Amino acid sequence: MPNLPLRFDIVSAVPQLLDSAFNHSIVGRARQKGLVTVVVHNLHDYATDKFKHIDDTPYGGGAGMVLQCDPIFRCIEQLMLERTYDEVIYLCPDGEVLNQNVCTALSLQSNIILLAGHYKGVDQRVRDVLITREISLGDFVVSGGELPAALLVDAVTRLLPGAVGDAESVLADSFMDGLLDAPLYTKPASYRGLDVPDVLRSGDHARIAEWRKQQSVQKTQSRRPDLLKGEGDTP
Amino acid sequence: MPNLPLRFDIVSAVPQLLDSAFNHSIVGRARQKGLVTVVVHNLHDYATDKFKHIDDTPYGGGAGMVLQCDPIFRCIEQLMLERTYDEVIYLCPDGEVLNQNVCTALSLQSNIILLAGHYKGVDQRVRDVLITREISLGDFVVSGGELPAALLVDAVTRLLPGAVGDAESVLADSFMDGLLDAPLYTKPASYRGLDVPDVLRSGDHARIAEWRKQQSVQKTQSRRPDLLKGEGDTP
Repeated sequence: MPNLPLRFDIVSAVPQLLDSAFNHSIVGRARQKGLVTVVVHNLHDYATDKFKHIDDTPYGGGAGMVLQCDPIFRCIEQLMLERTYDEVIYLCPDGEVLNQNVCTALSLQSNIILLAGHYKGVDQRVRDVLITREISLGDFVVSGGELPAALLVDAVTRLLPGAVGDAESVLADSFMDGLLDAPLYTKPASYRGLDVPDVLRSGDHARIAEWRKQQSVQKTQSRRPDLLKGEGDTP
Repeated sequence: MPNLPLRFDIVSAVPQLLDSAFNHSIVGRARQKGLVTVVVHNLHDYATDKFKHIDDTPYGGGAGMVLQCDPIFRCIEQLMLERTYDEVIYLCPDGEVLNQNVCTALSLQSNIILLAGHYKGVDQRVRDVLITREISLGDFVVSGGELPAALLVDAVTRLLPGAVGDAESVLADSFMDGLLDAPLYTKPASYRGLDVPDVLRSGDHARIAEWRKQQSVQKTQSRRPDLLKGEGDTP
């Protein structure tokens, strides 16, 4: 069992992007239940030059701005004086790709810093000295690490014991068994002439389980054959 | 050139999660400039039963709730009366995995509906009838499709002409040339004894370009050799 609450400190140049991400749904309720703590830190509060700059142009030329060392060092070092962190994660498109295994591992930790890049990214010296792990959401580029950080917090939080009302629901999710989820149906049984498959209304639990497994395997084979090769590796 | 503004209609069971995601940074400015329109629709507004339910238990049993057909059909059909949509995308963990190619293709369209799943997901009949494309952010599970929808909007919006101040900055991003980005440095030249590489301060543009290319290839080789196999396929 992890030590709860799991604490996330998010360091950001545009913290306003995160104003609504943690107040609702599963993460909002997990915060209320004391399962997770999320604190957002504004890099501008750690700027020391008189114009409160936190970014500047890249050495060697080229377009875009780069987040400077000093505000990030000052913010993260201040946090490190207050508690011990398991990981200082930089969200960036060139990191390790996030997956359910990474989320499960992070859900067992106690204190995690998430540094959200913004503009072109952060000065490499931050990555060389402070960062313990670099995580990417996937092979696409977004304006900053804020929304990726929010997604990571969500994906990890829902794995904490008690975060989702019915833990069985989490265990049946896509990826938890290395397969994509089977099709879902709810009431009404017939909608505009489209019927729920008979098997799901049969009450025969063994047949239902068999149908779902078969649908999962079939969908995974057709959409994500790469997952089947790795079957058994996932938690 | 795409017809601007590109319009996103996001259909969600928990629209409050998106309150702050589109008001700042690149997406916020792109909206102000008229490059992109983002409208969020609350599924609860399309519920017709007296308790305003939009979800119910899954047929065949099992944990979690499933979003019902009727509110989703009513919402999306209303939108389709108002304009023609290029895509009706369902964000779900078992869809096609989002990448920069998909974002580039979407950036050339005019009207896109994004359906955010929530709870266990949506009734399969919605997927069979209304959805033209299913997109996943990656191999992990989050509470809903809201944050994934926000990320998709961000990744696509920054590709619209005029969205990023300096278009060259977008072209130099990770993945645009199939390679990860080279290390970035900004002022000061020396920070706590850590120096910016001399080449970046040399003023020799040919040498700088060569160093950056070499660093990009090296980082891609060590972190993401899979990207190099596909080199040339990316836009």
